[in-house]
Amino acid sequence: MSAENPTLAWLHEPCKPIDHQTEAAARARQDRLTKPQGSLGRLEEMAIRLAGMQGALFPAVDPVRILQFVSDHGVALEGVSRFPREVTLQMLFNIARGGAAVSVMAETIGATMEIFDLGIATDPGPVPNVRSARLGPGTGNIAQEPAMTEQQLAQALTIGREAVERAVQEGARLLICGEMGIGNTTPATALACALLDLDPARLAGPGTGLSPEGVAHKAKVIARALALHGRSESPLELLRRLGGFDIAASTGAFIRAAQLGLPILVDGFIITSAALVAVRINPAVREWMLFAHGSAEPGHRLMLTALDADPYLDLKMRLGEATGGAALVPLLRMACVVHQRMATFDEAGVSKASGA
Amino acid sequence: MSAENPTLAWLHEPCKPIDHQTEAAARARQDRLTKPQGSLGRLEEMAIRLAGMQGALFPAVDPVRILQFVSDHGVALEGVSRFPREVTLQMLFNIARGGAAVSVMAETIGATMEIFDLGIATDPGPVPNVRSARLGPGTGNIAQEPAMTEQQLAQALTIGREAVERAVQEGARLLICGEMGIGNTTPATALACALLDLDPARLAGPGTGLSPEGVAHKAKVIARALALHGRSESPLELLRRLGGFDIAASTGAFIRAAQLGLPILVDGFIITSAALVAVRINPAVREWMLFAHGSAEPGHRLMLTALDADPYLDLKMRLGEATGGAALVPLLRMACVVHQRMATFDEAGVSKASGA
Repeated sequence: MSAENPTLAWLHEPCKPIDHQTEAAARARQDRLTKPQGSLGRLEEMAIRLAGMQGALFPAVDPVRILQFVSDHGVALEGVSRFPREVTLQMLFNIARGGAAVSVMAETIGATMEIFDLGIATDPGPVPNVRSARLGPGTGNIAQEPAMTEQQLAQALTIGREAVERAVQEGARLLICGEMGIGNTTPATALACALLDLDPARLAGPGTGLSPEGVAHKAKVIARALALHGRSESPLELLRRLGGFDIAASTGAFIRAAQLGLPILVDGFIITSAALVAVRINPAVREWMLFAHGSAEPGHRLMLTALDADPYLDLKMRLGEATGGAALVPLLRMACVVHQRMATFDEAGVSKASGA
Repeated sequence: MSAENPTLAWLHEPCKPIDHQTEAAARARQDRLTKPQGSLGRLEEMAIRLAGMQGALFPAVDPVRILQFVSDHGVALEGVSRFPREVTLQMLFNIARGGAAVSVMAETIGATMEIFDLGIATDPGPVPNVRSARLGPGTGNIAQEPAMTEQQLAQALTIGREAVERAVQEGARLLICGEMGIGNTTPATALACALLDLDPARLAGPGTGLSPEGVAHKAKVIARALALHGRSESPLELLRRLGGFDIAASTGAFIRAAQLGLPILVDGFIITSAALVAVRINPAVREWMLFAHGSAEPGHRLMLTALDADPYLDLKMRLGEATGGAALVPLLRMACVVHQRMATFDEAGVSKASGA
């Protein structure tokens, strides 16, 4: 894309400013609660950051909205996953019927989930609980061609944008994007390599469980893609050439969320690649992001470092589907409740610390 | 104690064996659920370990019982805390009235909490929601004398034991011990130094927020205690000389929980010192322990290493009161629900991975 598609101008609109005054008031409140200052550690940070984002001294995360982007990836044909491609379609049904990890977790945390078919290889027709938003029978094979046309890219970004606008309209206070699509650690890794200028051999990981030989093969496929598409294009053009429908829709969702002031909870490896693209396109999006967990996928740490992000959980998860995000929600909720309901030193008549 | 008090013989009774068959069945179930094997990481481990402890393919953590041990420590008179000693009493009221961090968290997770006055310097008389189980006006100052008499030690252990017997009788499925008592990182650190044969300068930390000079002073106080009492006594005798009523009651609670088959969720720094004593007295207790979080108190890591423990959370918390344990409960619960309700590959008709 030499001249950017004018329908994408919205991506560069300013993000809502963080309310630093309310954030400071929340920090001051934490220091008055009946505990040694700072002793609730990152639970304090969660409440303070959410207060600044929501402009509310007593922030809340409910209702939580999960956007689940399911799609196929042409590069799966290069043998970069241990699972056959039809698993994407099978898992769409499983997620929609309540049998997947994220289905159970979403119900447990009381989150509403919108599930999207963004382009599975085989069109499943109407599926209960699924929005058909098909952009094609999967992306192009990035080892041979761009993942998306300009039109597909614009549509994917818009799907994410509109989903966030719906969520905000329906009162959501926290956004989590998830993804399912066989082969999708490969485009996510390729994007990260291009954006961070790193060697695929350093970033490529086992995904769903590749052997060392499988990982080496995957790194070679990514190297071919990078050789074909280059690394020096704009973030948006790299997204088009190397990304996926899921990654592009999440990118659009994150940018819109920051523009509308909806806090973002970033999931694992693949969604972090979308977060990275979003921040490269519109840097102020970063301020609206909380990072849920560090993935067991080795390249995740490198992306997080580039985003100056230190995720809250490290439970060796590597599943995607928004499960890492969902796992943190009870702790965010607890952080908000403790922040609101604990007594202050004055209220409880508890003596404060001395200087020593 | 040259010959151990015969009323303490119960400490050495065998622990309930872990049900390794059910544990293996739970592991096999995890491998049949619709996700790449192992991709839920430590959430899988939580469900598998609880299954083995509870002898139930589908374990559960509710109801959760928190035992909150509040007491004073003679060594506080050496100036080892930034907070004045009366805060122990003030915080007892605050915990009992619902204003402390653990009060809010216990309500959030739906746990019942038994609050004990094990010996605050000033007897508060009857307090709603508090069990008076006073063993004296605080322990002895370990820098000058033993913390407890033999009788006080036996009573503290018995209070923990009986609280666990009540919890089990009332159906509890998970035990968390917490503590509040100004100065109590000092006896916990002293105990850890003696049990691990480490230098106080290496283990002593800021507790509620000491300056570097305050930490250095605390290390010297601990060194005096160690010089006075020695390091080579039995774990039980070290507990008597260097511990606290809170640490001793937790030790008794942990040993009884393992004997009765009640899973233990270990909280932070002080409670881990009790866990260490319990395991040194009766090594099989270790199998009944899950470790909730790594404390920001620097000596915690050394105790955890000695216990071969890798805690689930690292949120820079350093508050005690069972708050670290309470923070993990929603994740344990989620792990159990996911384990029970996710679909298997067969149920969902999802294809499995190939060898590659």
